[in-house]
Amino acid sequence: MIRHGLGERRIIEIIMSLQERMPGNPIPFGDDVSAVRIGGNRLAVLKCDMLVGMTDLPRGMSLWQASRKAVISTISDLAAKGVRPQAILASLGLPRSLSERDIREIGSGLNSGAREYGAYVLGGDTNESKDLVIDVSAFGSCSEEEIIRRDTANVGDKVAVTGDFGLTALGLRIIEEGLKVPRRLMVEATSAIFMPRARLREGLALAKHHLATASIDSSDGLAWSLYELAESSGVGFEIEHLPIHNLVKEYALKAGLDAAELALYGGEEYELIVTMKPAALKRSRKLGALKYIGSVTGEEGRVTLRSESGVCEIERKGYEHLKRDSQPQLT
Amino acid sequence: MIRHGLGERRIIEIIMSLQERMPGNPIPFGDDVSAVRIGGNRLAVLKCDMLVGMTDLPRGMSLWQASRKAVISTISDLAAKGVRPQAILASLGLPRSLSERDIREIGSGLNSGAREYGAYVLGGDTNESKDLVIDVSAFGSCSEEEIIRRDTANVGDKVAVTGDFGLTALGLRIIEEGLKVPRRLMVEATSAIFMPRARLREGLALAKHHLATASIDSSDGLAWSLYELAESSGVGFEIEHLPIHNLVKEYALKAGLDAAELALYGGEEYELIVTMKPAALKRSRKLGALKYIGSVTGEEGRVTLRSESGVCEIERKGYEHLKRDSQPQLT
Repeated sequence: MIRHGLGERRIIEIIMSLQERMPGNPIPFGDDVSAVRIGGNRLAVLKCDMLVGMTDLPRGMSLWQASRKAVISTISDLAAKGVRPQAILASLGLPRSLSERDIREIGSGLNSGAREYGAYVLGGDTNESKDLVIDVSAFGSCSEEEIIRRDTANVGDKVAVTGDFGLTALGLRIIEEGLKVPRRLMVEATSAIFMPRARLREGLALAKHHLATASIDSSDGLAWSLYELAESSGVGFEIEHLPIHNLVKEYALKAGLDAAELALYGGEEYELIVTMKPAALKRSRKLGALKYIGSVTGEEGRVTLRSESGVCEIERKGYEHLKRDSQPQLT
Repeated sequence: MIRHGLGERRIIEIIMSLQERMPGNPIPFGDDVSAVRIGGNRLAVLKCDMLVGMTDLPRGMSLWQASRKAVISTISDLAAKGVRPQAILASLGLPRSLSERDIREIGSGLNSGAREYGAYVLGGDTNESKDLVIDVSAFGSCSEEEIIRRDTANVGDKVAVTGDFGLTALGLRIIEEGLKVPRRLMVEATSAIFMPRARLREGLALAKHHLATASIDSSDGLAWSLYELAESSGVGFEIEHLPIHNLVKEYALKAGLDAAELALYGGEEYELIVTMKPAALKRSRKLGALKYIGSVTGEEGRVTLRSESGVCEIERKGYEHLKRDSQPQLT
């Protein structure tokens, strides 16, 4: 039996430690994407991301939405690097209970996810499996100067995000626990779960104009992703403004919930968290989308939140996959 | 419930029919790999292939062997196109019953499979799932003139293979049913299951010297792959010499088994089936590895076997995944 303490992070460490390293690998192990040099200063950029029905599918999510989301989630990692996705492959593990109509939904959702971002589904593989599995691979290419890495944030940089957080944490509680919220919040929060978007336009603009020093996709949750970004770059972050969605803030106040908690530990939000030189942050204001949230510090691996009551450590806690039964989970 | 008649082929058709086509796609849908133009007459070549524990893991196969085989099976598709694999990504669905030692075996098997063929595992994704899932994505690049497609065989070409068939069919029966066979055959047949090889050297040589007009990997079984190749190219094949492994032939004769059946419907053999102009076949003899088995005919989609007793149709039957329980399977 897996030890409860092993966890996804340790599993990834173990597997990574056993892989012989490619000499001159242009993007280090553990970044959002992998890359290979293909000549003329160009990189082939690769990413795979697996959706498993048991842990990743909230109640009420259609197969169309699930397969679309599997694509969006993979594209989001390319977006964080400023790389345009060109091709998508999808490996499917299909339970035998699926009908022809189910298969159509899956096929159509894959196509939609890809086409929304200008990519095409070029192929894949199908298998029978006990649980629905949708593994999406994405390919794009870019110049080596443009790709935005995870390990290149500098002390003194500013930290910014492409949007607000907290909707998915509420959305999951609405869907899974029947939490009652005002109608507008209900629509926004469940849309954040069922119909997420990837920040490709923003990522491409950041890369093209060399505005970001480092970047990460926030799908593992704001807090977790901040830690990952800080640790990869050997820096710390002091967050001044938590990017909490207005509707979440408003509702949390009335319902007696902790809005900061909802924003920090929600997950699957597909916003980008970027670091930028202060001048670049000013220039990026024209892009409209970026929100300043804090600064890069020299305190390696420390992520703090400054508020009126002082500075406190943000807990290094990630988004956890759905827990539908009582046994311990890998993540 | 899935209709018994739906089958993997129909599922792939449905999903493919729902994908918008990439304009100027250099490799048509349904070939062994997918490809994207990356400038300068170069193609990025992509393939994903999923191994599912329930259907793909024979008894007695270690996790090291399983993860290595998942890589080999993906590389085999690139080999069939004459493309050198450079990067491997692996998405893992891991049952929670796996121990740290199991995870190490999987990580180490992935690395071995990749390094045997000069590629590196650059990244991946891990998830919890009910069944073991290893989805391997491979990337390579090549020139557009060199890649060997599936739809370009011509009437009058010769058909050749890179090796003999029949060992895996016996190997599975040895492993799953306890079939008793002579020692040497036992070793060869079980090795074919547990430690398969991809024909990368042969595929690269065929591409480099422009020796093949078309090619396919035989992992779905000799008969099935012949049909796929013939149909893609709009031709037929007349097979004269079934490439049956000597030990299989010898044993089948003694045991009263049908050696042709074992060779035609075994599957997971990872040999290449290629078509070549007659002159190229002669030239290729220097390469040593290729065996002439028949000729390309104008009878579209017809695959026949010529023997002393006349010409008969080869049944269009594929390799079926393991059937461990009584319910109907997708494939």
